[in-house]
Amino acid sequence: MASSSCTSYANSPCAACKFLRRKCTSDCVFAPYFPPEEPTKFANVHRIFGASNVSKILQEVEPHQREDAVNSLAYEAEARLKDPVYGCVGAISILQRQVIRLQRELEETNADLMRYASCFGAETTSFGGRKSGGRGGGRDGEGYGGY
Amino acid sequence: MASSSCTSYANSPCAACKFLRRKCTSDCVFAPYFPPEEPTKFANVHRIFGASNVSKILQEVEPHQREDAVNSLAYEAEARLKDPVYGCVGAISILQRQVIRLQRELEETNADLMRYASCFGAETTSFGGRKSGGRGGGRDGEGYGGY
Repeated sequence: MASSSCTSYANSPCAACKFLRRKCTSDCVFAPYFPPEEPTKFANVHRIFGASNVSKILQEVEPHQREDAVNSLAYEAEARLKDPVYGCVGAISILQRQVIRLQRELEETNADLMRYASCFGAETTSFGGRKSGGRGGGRDGEGYGGY
Repeated sequence: MASSSCTSYANSPCAACKFLRRKCTSDCVFAPYFPPEEPTKFANVHRIFGASNVSKILQEVEPHQREDAVNSLAYEAEARLKDPVYGCVGAISILQRQVIRLQRELEETNADLMRYASCFGAETTSFGGRKSGGRGGGRDGEGYGGY
């Protein structure tokens, strides 16, 4: 949920305006998403994306999507500050490898199940065997193939 | 592999210098990673992060890590341009859900295997049963829990 807008903090500018040392007006685009009690959130996105780019992105998206946009930018910024080389792309890489490993394990377990069934000459219909996820594996066009 | 440095394009500035309309010198920090034949790569990172922030990140990391840094920045920038609300954090979210689904399927398949074994009163040691991935699931501290 969006934090209160700047007008709720009559005596305190939002974290963005405080950081940028400017007057926080009632139509401040940052105020609903960067409350004064979370100064690091703005400092991080400013350091990685720049206030101007964050403002542009916020203007581009629908008002009801702005909080998600800010949160994803804050997540990316924090990840980049922790890992300047890979940023949150490192998490994508780890998750992709995990998906591939799980798919392989699932295939092997299904093969075990089938082998078991054939050993005992039993019908296998009740045990079926599962196929890995419905989205076509770990590389749905969203994946990062850079390394 | 890093592209040739700016000096290899004596008559052509790197994509960054061309975009920024400045002279491309032999010590240009962008030149090895933004060759003139890939103008979109620089335009994207400039639009999302700003040239100055990209330059700062490049200066922060070791020279041998700069190409990875540029490629991950280019990936993030492209994802943000495609999806201004979630950027590449959307891919993290999809992959996390896929990991959770695969872990559940693997657990169910292992349960089937154990059930099969007990039905036939057989020893189960040769079939074992697999545990899902070794990294503690889809939320290794890298995950995005924002939505």
